[in-house]
Amino acid sequence: MKHTLLPLLIIVLWISGTCQAQPVQTTVTEDFKPSSTNQPGKEYPMVNSEGRVRASISAPEAHRVQLDISAVKYDLTKDENGVWTGDSAPQDEGFHYYQLWIDGASVPDPGSIYFYGAMRWGSGIEIPAHDQDIYDLKNVPHGQIREILFPSESTNTSRRAFVYTPPGYEKNLDRRYPVLYLQHGWGENEYGWPNQGKTNLIMDNLIASGKTEPFIIVMTYGMTNEVKIGGLRNFDINPFQTVLINELIPFIDDNFRTLSDQPNRAMAGLSMGGFETRLITLKNLDIFSHIGLFSGGSISPEDVLSTPGFKEKVKLVFVSYGSREIENRRSGGRGPFGGDPKENTDAIIKEGVNAYFYVSPNTAHEWQSWRRSLYEFAQLLFKQS
Amino acid sequence: MKHTLLPLLIIVLWISGTCQAQPVQTTVTEDFKPSSTNQPGKEYPMVNSEGRVRASISAPEAHRVQLDISAVKYDLTKDENGVWTGDSAPQDEGFHYYQLWIDGASVPDPGSIYFYGAMRWGSGIEIPAHDQDIYDLKNVPHGQIREILFPSESTNTSRRAFVYTPPGYEKNLDRRYPVLYLQHGWGENEYGWPNQGKTNLIMDNLIASGKTEPFIIVMTYGMTNEVKIGGLRNFDINPFQTVLINELIPFIDDNFRTLSDQPNRAMAGLSMGGFETRLITLKNLDIFSHIGLFSGGSISPEDVLSTPGFKEKVKLVFVSYGSREIENRRSGGRGPFGGDPKENTDAIIKEGVNAYFYVSPNTAHEWQSWRRSLYEFAQLLFKQS
Repeated sequence: MKHTLLPLLIIVLWISGTCQAQPVQTTVTEDFKPSSTNQPGKEYPMVNSEGRVRASISAPEAHRVQLDISAVKYDLTKDENGVWTGDSAPQDEGFHYYQLWIDGASVPDPGSIYFYGAMRWGSGIEIPAHDQDIYDLKNVPHGQIREILFPSESTNTSRRAFVYTPPGYEKNLDRRYPVLYLQHGWGENEYGWPNQGKTNLIMDNLIASGKTEPFIIVMTYGMTNEVKIGGLRNFDINPFQTVLINELIPFIDDNFRTLSDQPNRAMAGLSMGGFETRLITLKNLDIFSHIGLFSGGSISPEDVLSTPGFKEKVKLVFVSYGSREIENRRSGGRGPFGGDPKENTDAIIKEGVNAYFYVSPNTAHEWQSWRRSLYEFAQLLFKQS
Repeated sequence: MKHTLLPLLIIVLWISGTCQAQPVQTTVTEDFKPSSTNQPGKEYPMVNSEGRVRASISAPEAHRVQLDISAVKYDLTKDENGVWTGDSAPQDEGFHYYQLWIDGASVPDPGSIYFYGAMRWGSGIEIPAHDQDIYDLKNVPHGQIREILFPSESTNTSRRAFVYTPPGYEKNLDRRYPVLYLQHGWGENEYGWPNQGKTNLIMDNLIASGKTEPFIIVMTYGMTNEVKIGGLRNFDINPFQTVLINELIPFIDDNFRTLSDQPNRAMAGLSMGGFETRLITLKNLDIFSHIGLFSGGSISPEDVLSTPGFKEKVKLVFVSYGSREIENRRSGGRGPFGGDPKENTDAIIKEGVNAYFYVSPNTAHEWQSWRRSLYEFAQLLFKQS
């Protein structure tokens, strides 16, 4: 099990970083616009063409206000009206969590809408991306995101899942669809893929352009956040595996028009959700045929050899990372662990596995990598069914 | 049009109130528990058996922190670790918006989950209610809340709506259902009814207990928030009426298994959503047969007389208020305007209209009144179809 440390180390990498105050940048391009993730009618935060974030908040009695994004805190400065304003360094394209600090209190920015990640509901901001066309809201047929509650005997609760049903699902009542089970990462929950993941828009656009056949996507909480930092060695996949395999999958197959055989069921996840995907699929190849690991490990030749029936049962292995994750490893820092993911993927291709390796350009362990991963993965899914 | 001032005055009543700092209460019952609306794993805010809210936040460098709820600001006090804590006065049962003030900055409490109301995404808190059984999450069959995007030519956008489909909708593919169009109030949006309104749980429980027949509920943004305080006199219902009647209703009837005739279509709304409901239904009685006004006006005998076909076409009029809204008027303060709603309702009953008047006990212009109103209204709907 040479990969078991991978997600832990990624998590440590992700949450670490220096948090010293940085002086506000002075040479910035003055083309700031309100972010697309602002609350209705709110002018701030803004983003400029360099990807800098400009935050602003009225706090007339405060003596220190900071913008905290990508593990760096930027001092804001106060004007004569008690309004604090300041800029971050340029950020990667895509989505980032952030927060404000007001006299030592870490709080959400009242200007942004809120997302769940880093173990809290809090602020997030969208940096326009050169390829945002893949998740733009367009005038195409739209699927639905459905919030469902399913009974779980093993946890004695009604549990929430979100289900994407593709355009046409309501009208083609004789048609049945393949299903992808799609997991969030550590510190996140089932809202991640439908909200900051933009799952429905990515799928609507892909289907409208004819690049993928319609399928259903199911997103539920992976029970990841009970794991404390450093405690992943003791992580027990069984509670979540029981919910997923014994409870959620039968409920979905009973309540949606699914193709419920193994060739038509996939599982994928990001970061710790990739770790879960790897553990669950390798033990359940009679249930899953397509595997996606986004910034969350890889499948090695040893995995293929040691898993009975792997070559016959697995129709697709998709492994992806952000380019900065790869670069960081090459330059001697932390990065993808547990064996080089590209080397592993190349090796299993040579073994005859239908495998793909994708690198998201100029992104790190962050949502833009995972949106792009879903976009690429979706085009490969269920083609061999 | 003797009712046109009603929502404006309610709005003024709602957002007014003295905002002076109040000393922290010292005689409180020490049985505080984390609120059900807390973020996962967060201990604060807490609520005690008196309905007091106890807020707490670490802000070591701050010199003033306040809890702002129900239009009163309560000073918090700082301990040796820089953690500020303090209590509110007892609150009404049910849901309340609130925020924290840190050295003059109004911010969401990082302990709570977030709701849209009062024109912002921000903190909300649940005060346990003696009748919360009506919206408890129970082990009963659950419907779905679906997020849909529908095309709107009149606004040149794809617009969001939430659609509640009842338990069984996925399996009884030959069954068609009546539809209720349900509107939020001023300062709120389409998330209000599915989130703080607990629409799906109220309906799931009602249907499981056999108290109502299943129907579909559609919730979209009522375009209310472009209206500035004091500008309601100039409010133009036509843009929203066009979206609702020309665009949303045809889309719903085309994409869901609805009963699409007039006897099977209802409209209701709270506060300004009631104002919209009254304007739209009275002009469109070939489309709607059931009318619900929750803290949002009433139907007078003059309305019945001046609206052609009213008695033949309208199968139900339901009018409700919180008891504190009624009491406030009786004691000479502001309250339901445009004619006494109970007198109006009694008068149209005498005219032969099937009308009901409901008062929510010990609640004001707030969500607990509207949850109870939906619970009562749903049991009366579509019984005469």
